[in-house]
Amino acid sequence: MGKELVQFQDVVEAAERIRPFVHRTPVITSATLNEQLCAHIFLKCENLQRAGAFKIRGATNAVLQLTAAERERGVVTHSSGNHGQALALAAKLRGMKATVIMPSTSSRVKRESVALYGAEVRLCEPTLAAREATTRDVIEQTGAVLIHPYNDERIIAGQGTAALELLDQVDELDAIITPVGGGGLLSGSALALSGKGRSITIFAGEPKGADDAARSLKAGKLLPADEPKSIADGLLASLGEKPFSVIRERVQEIYTVSEEAIISAMRFVWERTKLIIEPSSAVAVAVLFENPEVFRGKRVGVILSGGNVDLERLPWGQM
Amino acid sequence: MGKELVQFQDVVEAAERIRPFVHRTPVITSATLNEQLCAHIFLKCENLQRAGAFKIRGATNAVLQLTAAERERGVVTHSSGNHGQALALAAKLRGMKATVIMPSTSSRVKRESVALYGAEVRLCEPTLAAREATTRDVIEQTGAVLIHPYNDERIIAGQGTAALELLDQVDELDAIITPVGGGGLLSGSALALSGKGRSITIFAGEPKGADDAARSLKAGKLLPADEPKSIADGLLASLGEKPFSVIRERVQEIYTVSEEAIISAMRFVWERTKLIIEPSSAVAVAVLFENPEVFRGKRVGVILSGGNVDLERLPWGQM
Repeated sequence: MGKELVQFQDVVEAAERIRPFVHRTPVITSATLNEQLCAHIFLKCENLQRAGAFKIRGATNAVLQLTAAERERGVVTHSSGNHGQALALAAKLRGMKATVIMPSTSSRVKRESVALYGAEVRLCEPTLAAREATTRDVIEQTGAVLIHPYNDERIIAGQGTAALELLDQVDELDAIITPVGGGGLLSGSALALSGKGRSITIFAGEPKGADDAARSLKAGKLLPADEPKSIADGLLASLGEKPFSVIRERVQEIYTVSEEAIISAMRFVWERTKLIIEPSSAVAVAVLFENPEVFRGKRVGVILSGGNVDLERLPWGQM
Repeated sequence: MGKELVQFQDVVEAAERIRPFVHRTPVITSATLNEQLCAHIFLKCENLQRAGAFKIRGATNAVLQLTAAERERGVVTHSSGNHGQALALAAKLRGMKATVIMPSTSSRVKRESVALYGAEVRLCEPTLAAREATTRDVIEQTGAVLIHPYNDERIIAGQGTAALELLDQVDELDAIITPVGGGGLLSGSALALSGKGRSITIFAGEPKGADDAARSLKAGKLLPADEPKSIADGLLASLGEKPFSVIRERVQEIYTVSEEAIISAMRFVWERTKLIIEPSSAVAVAVLFENPEVFRGKRVGVILSGGNVDLERLPWGQM
């Protein structure tokens, strides 16, 4: 394995850097979950993280490394979801200007959340071309620094700090599972494990309807997503090149799960643990329920990536 | 103040006794909540407790003090809610039989939860007379030991352990707020504070539609509830005599809150902290929003009492 873009030490430094700005999230266990799976499951609650997702870790790590000149210019990103909120909050914490480009189809709730953290929301048509054009416009007009949601070394290192914390909170883990979309969390987590003496296996979960990471890992080369579709809207992004360079070397397996399995796992977590998790988090939990034989008798950490859901649009029947 | 039925030392001993059987629940903070209230709020997450509420603390403390002969006979209680589940689980952990008498109007979800923990569910008409008759029947037939939901010293001491833990987790608190129904949590919390050197004020929240505790505290004598009605179904019980003997001496004030304030506080907590709390927990949070001037600049602990809600019947509109 050649020298990677990001190293274990970068994750350690990111943890130190972002500590004053993010929560050390709790780890929760559920006796019912353990009994059903005949395993010991440790849920790392990044849904309880600031701005409701692990994304604040990477965004803060990136923002804190900007030069004085860059800080002056502000930051920009395109995101319909948690990275937009996270960058908005990270910029606010540093007193910087942020612009978040969101598709015009994004929900009012999400736009308001970004605006609440003080960022400027710029809407564009929901196409890749429109998004890129709008991003270029903003950069030309303002000189803002682009902070990509996942294809960025600082983001990868920052996202890895959740797994690093988990290793400090729980002894003797056998495995860790994260969801995978663009790959920032998964690659960062893999790097966080790489510095530990004994080997801990890393797995990921991905929706069947957005399975480019699973296909890419199998093929050994980056394959683009093909009209991805899933309730797990945080995982629709195509796997990034930089995360993939880590994932291909370090991740044991990426399991795909159905929409039914995602909703069922989400509901189980809500009902049994009283934690609000978004469908993307449920993807990692669904991996457990769909593959119990892999995890039986093991000590498994699961990163609950976020909890940003629209409470008026839950994926189960309402009376 | 004469010698009370329950003392600080009983809470300390209860904490020691139940430690292997209950979770040490995390304390969560929310920057948004703190900003809105200009205060430092510490949410003690008993919604993440085993069986989804603080009730397991008292139930376990009671069950662990039974004699061998009593254990043989099993336990019984009447409860439409969290105490029934808690006693069922506490009995299961000790390999004992439990019977829970529930009104025939109680939801399927709640009955199933009790049954899931291995207790026998006995339905009765939803009247006080029927409940008492059924309880007598069970005791006559089985010799089971009645574990009252709150009018019991062991329950009061057990419930106080949540506040005791909170004091260990957060320094320099100025005040603690709990909800009040039968009074077990409030009286136990007041006792937990009583052993500390510096004074911490204790407040409670109660629904306007079930305000017997507020009226009793004001009158200085126990006044019965008069057709209590609230979405906070865990707080409909009338204040018990034993809890009241502690509350009248130690509680600063019981604030009443409207149904609208309860629902609004519940939704705020779900959206901003990603914690599922039941309406009874939201009552304590509503006290903050309705009386910001009392808590401004203060460090306030709030006991989120439980998270058992029917996810198919949420008190806000669904699309």
